[in-house]
Amino acid sequence: MSGNTFGKLFAVTSFGESHGPAIGCVIDGCPPGMTLTEADIQIELDRRRPGTSRHVTQRREPDTVEILSGVFEGKTTGTPIALLIRNEDQRSKDYQNIAQSFRPGHADYVYLQKYGLRDHRGGGRSSARETAVRVAAGAVAKKWLAERHGVRVRGYMSQLGPKEIPFVDWDAVGTNPFFAPNADMVPELEAFMDALRKSGDSVGAKIIVIAEGVPVGWGQPVYDRLDAQIAYAMMGINAVKGVEIGSGFGAITEPGSIHGDEMTPQGFLSNHAGGVLGGISTGQDIIVNLAVKPTSSIRLPRRSIDVHGQPTIVETHGRHDPCVAIRATPIAEAMLALVLIDAALLHRAQCGDVVSPAPRIPGRVVD
Amino acid sequence: MSGNTFGKLFAVTSFGESHGPAIGCVIDGCPPGMTLTEADIQIELDRRRPGTSRHVTQRREPDTVEILSGVFEGKTTGTPIALLIRNEDQRSKDYQNIAQSFRPGHADYVYLQKYGLRDHRGGGRSSARETAVRVAAGAVAKKWLAERHGVRVRGYMSQLGPKEIPFVDWDAVGTNPFFAPNADMVPELEAFMDALRKSGDSVGAKIIVIAEGVPVGWGQPVYDRLDAQIAYAMMGINAVKGVEIGSGFGAITEPGSIHGDEMTPQGFLSNHAGGVLGGISTGQDIIVNLAVKPTSSIRLPRRSIDVHGQPTIVETHGRHDPCVAIRATPIAEAMLALVLIDAALLHRAQCGDVVSPAPRIPGRVVD
Amino acid sequence: MSGNTFGKLFAVTSFGESHGPAIGCVIDGCPPGMTLTEADIQIELDRRRPGTSRHVTQRREPDTVEILSGVFEGKTTGTPIALLIRNEDQRSKDYQNIAQSFRPGHADYVYLQKYGLRDHRGGGRSSARETAVRVAAGAVAKKWLAERHGVRVRGYMSQLGPKEIPFVDWDAVGTNPFFAPNADMVPELEAFMDALRKSGDSVGAKIIVIAEGVPVGWGQPVYDRLDAQIAYAMMGINAVKGVEIGSGFGAITEPGSIHGDEMTPQGFLSNHAGGVLGGISTGQDIIVNLAVKPTSSIRLPRRSIDVHGQPTIVETHGRHDPCVAIRATPIAEAMLALVLIDAALLHRAQCGDVVSPAPRIPGRVVD
Amino acid sequence: MSGNTFGKLFAVTSFGESHGPAIGCVIDGCPPGMTLTEADIQIELDRRRPGTSRHVTQRREPDTVEILSGVFEGKTTGTPIALLIRNEDQRSKDYQNIAQSFRPGHADYVYLQKYGLRDHRGGGRSSARETAVRVAAGAVAKKWLAERHGVRVRGYMSQLGPKEIPFVDWDAVGTNPFFAPNADMVPELEAFMDALRKSGDSVGAKIIVIAEGVPVGWGQPVYDRLDAQIAYAMMGINAVKGVEIGSGFGAITEPGSIHGDEMTPQGFLSNHAGGVLGGISTGQDIIVNLAVKPTSSIRLPRRSIDVHGQPTIVETHGRHDPCVAIRATPIAEAMLALVLIDAALLHRAQCGDVVSPAPRIPGRVVD
Repeated sequence: MSGNTFGKLFAVTSFGESHGPAIGCVIDGCPPGMTLTEADIQIELDRRRPGTSRHVTQRREPDTVEILSGVFEGKTTGTPIALLIRNEDQRSKDYQNIAQSFRPGHADYVYLQKYGLRDHRGGGRSSARETAVRVAAGAVAKKWLAERHGVRVRGYMSQLGPKEIPFVDWDAVGTNPFFAPNADMVPELEAFMDALRKSGDSVGAKIIVIAEGVPVGWGQPVYDRLDAQIAYAMMGINAVKGVEIGSGFGAITEPGSIHGDEMTPQGFLSNHAGGVLGGISTGQDIIVNLAVKPTSSIRLPRRSIDVHGQPTIVETHGRHDPCVAIRATPIAEAMLALVLIDAALLHRAQCGDVVSPAPRIPGRVVD
Repeated sequence: MSGNTFGKLFAVTSFGESHGPAIGCVIDGCPPGMTLTEADIQIELDRRRPGTSRHVTQRREPDTVEILSGVFEGKTTGTPIALLIRNEDQRSKDYQNIAQSFRPGHADYVYLQKYGLRDHRGGGRSSARETAVRVAAGAVAKKWLAERHGVRVRGYMSQLGPKEIPFVDWDAVGTNPFFAPNADMVPELEAFMDALRKSGDSVGAKIIVIAEGVPVGWGQPVYDRLDAQIAYAMMGINAVKGVEIGSGFGAITEPGSIHGDEMTPQGFLSNHAGGVLGGISTGQDIIVNLAVKPTSSIRLPRRSIDVHGQPTIVETHGRHDPCVAIRATPIAEAMLALVLIDAALLHRAQCGDVVSPAPRIPGRVVD
Repeated sequence: MSGNTFGKLFAVTSFGESHGPAIGCVIDGCPPGMTLTEADIQIELDRRRPGTSRHVTQRREPDTVEILSGVFEGKTTGTPIALLIRNEDQRSKDYQNIAQSFRPGHADYVYLQKYGLRDHRGGGRSSARETAVRVAAGAVAKKWLAERHGVRVRGYMSQLGPKEIPFVDWDAVGTNPFFAPNADMVPELEAFMDALRKSGDSVGAKIIVIAEGVPVGWGQPVYDRLDAQIAYAMMGINAVKGVEIGSGFGAITEPGSIHGDEMTPQGFLSNHAGGVLGGISTGQDIIVNLAVKPTSSIRLPRRSIDVHGQPTIVETHGRHDPCVAIRATPIAEAMLALVLIDAALLHRAQCGDVVSPAPRIPGRVVD
Repeated sequence: MSGNTFGKLFAVTSFGESHGPAIGCVIDGCPPGMTLTEADIQIELDRRRPGTSRHVTQRREPDTVEILSGVFEGKTTGTPIALLIRNEDQRSKDYQNIAQSFRPGHADYVYLQKYGLRDHRGGGRSSARETAVRVAAGAVAKKWLAERHGVRVRGYMSQLGPKEIPFVDWDAVGTNPFFAPNADMVPELEAFMDALRKSGDSVGAKIIVIAEGVPVGWGQPVYDRLDAQIAYAMMGINAVKGVEIGSGFGAITEPGSIHGDEMTPQGFLSNHAGGVLGGISTGQDIIVNLAVKPTSSIRLPRRSIDVHGQPTIVETHGRHDPCVAIRATPIAEAMLALVLIDAALLHRAQCGDVVSPAPRIPGRVVD
C-alpha cells in the first residue's frame, strides 16, 4: 500500500537513501528453482553504474550487490530474495546548501511539505540512486522471462535533447555511454554533452524499450491492463514525464483504417498497437517510448525560496548527471521486465490451464 | 489483485459486460458522512451517455444508476457503496458476425487467447461501456474532493484527429458534443465528423484533464508516485495510447534552465512539471494529456482471420462511435478524481498529523 | 484495503446492509471456463436461508441470487462475476428503539463511534445477513475446488451450548436444522432450543469444518500461511470468538512425541496438525474448529446506554436467531473454500511448474 | 501478495533464512517524525534472544539490529525503514541428516513438496529465527502506538504444558525466562523444563497478550475486522494452533445474558468480548489467547520417511527449544502491535475527521 512495493506476485519492496548506509530491496514471489548468482545481477547494475563516462555523475559507486536470502546452492528457493547494495562514495557535505533551500524542479520542497522533514543529502529517497535497486530486481525478472518464456527486453536512446538518433543496429547500443543505436552519431552526441556540461545546464531525452517474445494473453483488464501497468512503471521512473505505447500520440492523427493492425495467418501486417490490445499482450513486440525531463540540479542560478519561505538563488554544484536519461535505458528495461513477470504470474494464476480454441498467429510483422 | 479493482483505500471494483444484464461497481473505503444521492452520480453519467448527438453511437442507454448500499438517510456510512446500471438497449444479434472473426485493433483476438472463451456481444468486458462505471465512481470521488479539499477536476478535447482546438474558455466545453473549449470551431468539427462517418473510417483525439486546488503533498513515492498512478489510470482507459504530465514529451527539448519551475514566495513562475515533482503534488494545477486512438470497429473492410485461423475480411456494422474520444473527457476526469481521492486518503493515513516546518507557497503561477 | 474484499486472486468484494435494497458481491479472478448457473449457488444459499425452522429467525427471505456478469453461455469468462440478492422481508420499524440505544454485545456502539453515523436497521452492515454473500461466493469456490482438485469442504455442529454432539455420520448433517451429525440427538437439541427461546436468552455453539482432498503445498508462508488465512477467515465470521487448527488448544498439553504426526510411505499415523505444517497444506484433511458466541440481541433486559450517553435498559424484540451458530455451518464451509481457492491460485502462480524430487505420500491417516 | 508482507499501511516485508547471511525486513508506511534508534528495537530483540537461559536453544545470537534506511538524524522520515540482523552462530553441519529426511510435525516435507527444493539448514525460512524480524518491526509499532495513542501491548505465559500459571502481577513477567506472571511458580516451571529436556521430548504452552488503551473504532469490517486480523497475525506465528479473543471457546457455554457486556456511562460491566465487537475495538482491553504446540524437533526417535519416500527413523539433535513457546510472548506482543498500528492508520485514512454524535464511555470495567 505504502508506495515502495512494485508488483503483486513478483513483489519488489525497495528501501534506501542516496547517502544512507545502503539501498536494496526484497523480492517476494520469485518462482523457485531458477539458478541465480550475484553475477547475474551485477552485469545489469554495471550498465547503470555512475562514473562510467565523463557524461554522467562522477560519483564512484561500485554498486556491488549482495544476495542476503532466497537463494540456496545457487537456486532460488521461492522465499524472499533480499538484495543489498552498500553506499560507498557519499559526499554529504556537498549538500549542506541544499538543506536550507529548494532546487527548482526537484522534490526538495514537496518532500518537506509531505513528511515534515527530509533527508536532504543527495536528495535522500528521491535520488535517482534508488533506481539501482530497480535494475537489480529487474535483472532477476529478465532472467526468468528469458529462461521460462524466451522473452527479451532491451532499449536504447532515440533522442538526446534536440538530437534525434536514427536506429541503425542493436549492436551499437552497448558500445557507447548513451545507449545510442547508432555508432556514427556518438561523436556528435559527445560534443553536444561536452558543451552542455560546460554551460552548466541540463537536457532531456527520449528512450524506447522493446520486449520481444511476449506470448499473447498477458495483462489483467480492465484496470490492470498490461499497458496501464507499463505506464505506471515508466512514469514512476525519476524524471519521466511522458509514456507512449505503440503509435502513442501519433495515434491521434492515424485513421482507424491505418491504426488497426490487420491480421493474417502468417502474422500481423503492422504493429501500431505496440503489442497490446484491450490491455492484453498480442504476441507482437511491446514497444514503449519515454520522455525524460532534464536534470533539475544544475549549476545555472535559479530563483527559489529557502526553508523559511524567503526568496533565494539556487546554484547546484556537487556531482550530477547533466542528462539523467543517459543512464535511464537499463532502468526502463528493468521496469518493463518487472511488469512482464508480474503479468506472467498473474496470468498463470487465473488462466494457467486455459487452452484457446483458436490457433495463435505469429507475433511478427509480415513483410 | 485480479485487475478489476481501482484504488487502494477508495477501492472501486467494477463488473459487467456490454450486453449482459447490468454493469456496476462497489466502492469500498468512501469516507462516511458525505451527502450522496443518485442525482449526484447521474449528472456525470449523463455527460458520458451514448446517443446524445449524431457523432456518437446511437445505442440508447439511459444509464440510470441505482445506489444499492452504503448510503443511509442521504449520507455515506463508510460501508461499501454498490452502484448498479442496468443495460437496456442491446442488439446482440448485430454481433453474430464478430463471433466468428476478430476485428483488427480490437480485443477480440486477445480475449479469446487469454481466457479460452469470450462474450463477443458488443465486445463484452472490453467494451467502452464499462467506462460508465468509472464515471459513476468518479462522481463520488469528485464530490468528496470538492467538498473536503476544494479540488476541481475538469477536462476538454484539445485535438480531434488532425484538427487542433485552441483553448478559448471553459464555458464552451459544456455547450457542444465534443467537449471542445472553443465554440467557434464546433461547426468545423461537426463537418469533419459528418464526413468521417460517411467514409466509414474513424479517428483519434487528444484530451487534456486538469485538477485545480490539489494541496501539496499527495502521492506515495517511489513507485506509487502521483504521476505514476495517473499514468496507470489514464493508460487504463480504453483506447488510450499515450499519457503526458506537464510538458510531457516537450520536456525532451526543454533545457533544465527552462523546465525547472522557479519558485517565489508568491508562487511558481511556471508549471512545466504539471503539478507533480518527485511523485508528489506541488500545489499547482495537475495537467495531464491523453492520446486516444481511433475506434477499431469501422465499416471499411479490413484483412483479418477467423476463429479457425483462416483469412477473412471484416467490416464492422452495428452502432459504434467513429471517435471514441468524443466521450472520453468525463471518463478521464473520473479517473483523475479516483487517483486523487486515493492519494488523499493514503496521505492522511501516513502523514495525517504532519506539520511542515516550512511555509507553503501558493500553487498558482505568478504572472 | 478497505476491509470488504476477501482474497487476493479469487477476490470477493461484498456489499449491502440488512435492510437496504440488496446485498451481493463481485468475484474477481475466477478462472474461466467453469460451468456456472444460479442453481449452483442457490443450493448453498438455501442451506443458510432464514425461516427454515422455528429455531432460527422468522424473517422470510428467499435469498434468490442473480448473476449479473462474468458468465456467458453457462461458463465463467474470467471477468468479474457479480452476484445480487435483493432484500425482501424487511421490517425496519422493529428497529426504531435500537436507533436510540446500544445493544450490549452488539456492534451498535462501535459503528456509531467509528463512522459517526450508522444504519441501525437490523444492524445494517454488521448484520449476519451479509453472510449470505459469503455463502454465495463460497459456492463458486467450492465448485472449482471440487471440479479442478477433487477437494470437498463440509462441516457440522459439534456442540450446542452445554450439549456436546458426538459425531455419528455425515448423512445426518443434512437432515436436521442444526447441521448435527447425530440424528438421535436432534429431539434433545430441539427441546433445548425451545426452552431457550421461551427464556428470551441465547446460546453459543461449536462448529467444525473439514476440507478433504487438499493437495500438499498450498499456503504462502511466512505471514500468509494457510492456517493464518483460515484463522482470519473464520474469526471474520460474525460472532466467532475462537479458532483452532487440528489439536488447537489441546496441543498445549500434548508432548511433541505425541503431537508431531509420524509419516510412513502409506500415509500419516495421525493428524494432530489438522492438515497444515509450516503454513502449508500437508495433503491431510484440514480440520478447523470455531467457537461461536451467543446472539447479542435477546429479549431479556440488559443495562446499556443511549446515544446521549445516558443509562437505559435494552430489551431486543424483532426477529433474531437465538443461536446464530445454527446457520453458521454453511458460512464456515464457504469461508474455508474461499481461503483454499485463493491458496490454490497463489500456489499455481508462483509454483505452477514445480516438480518435487521427493515422492508424495497419501494424505490419509494409516490405521 | 506473496505472503511475506504483513500489514497494508504499516507494511512489514520480511526476509531471511535461519542459516543464511542475514534476516531482516523493510517497514513501509511508518509515519514520519517519530524518534527511533537501534536501541529502541534492540531492547525488544533482547527479550526474544536465544541462549538467555538453559531452557531455550543454546544458539548464541546477539541479534544486533542495524537500521539501513528511513531514519535521518534520529527521526523516521516516512520512507522505508530497512532493518538488518546478521546471522552469526550457525552450525549448518548439525543439519546434514535433516537434509535427507523429514522431521514429523515440521515443515521439512511440505517445503520440499511446494517449492521443489529447500534450504534444510536449521529449517531455512520456516525456522522460528524469522520471528526476530517480527519482534524488531513490532518494536517500531509499539513505540508509535505508545507515543501517539498511549497504547500498551504486553503478554505473559499462562500455562506451560500441563501447568497452569495463575496471574499474580505484571512485575514478575520480566524476572524469569518463562515470562510467567507468578514468581513463586518459577522453580516448579524450571524443574519441569529440566526434566523435559532430559527426556528428549518437548511441550506446548498458552500465551495471553493484552493491549490496553486502544481507542474505540479501530478495525475494518466486514472481512478485515480487528479480531480477524489478530487471528491471522497470531495463527501466523510458528507453532500456534489456536487463537481466542475474549471468552473464546468459553463463549460456547455462556448464555447471551452473561456474555454480552453491559454498558454504563462509567464504563462496561464486563469484558467477555475481549475488546472487539463487530470487528471494531470497543475501547476495552484487547485480550488474546494463543495455543502453542510442542517443538517438532526432538531427540526421541520418530517414524518418518526420507527424500526417496523410504521409511526411516528421525532423531533430531542440534540446538532446539524444548518449548518454543517460552520465547513466544514478545513475538505475540509484536504481532498484536503490528495489527493495531495498521488498524490505526486504516481508520485514520477513512475516518480521520469523524466526530461521533454519541459520547464515548470509558473502556475500563466498572467494579
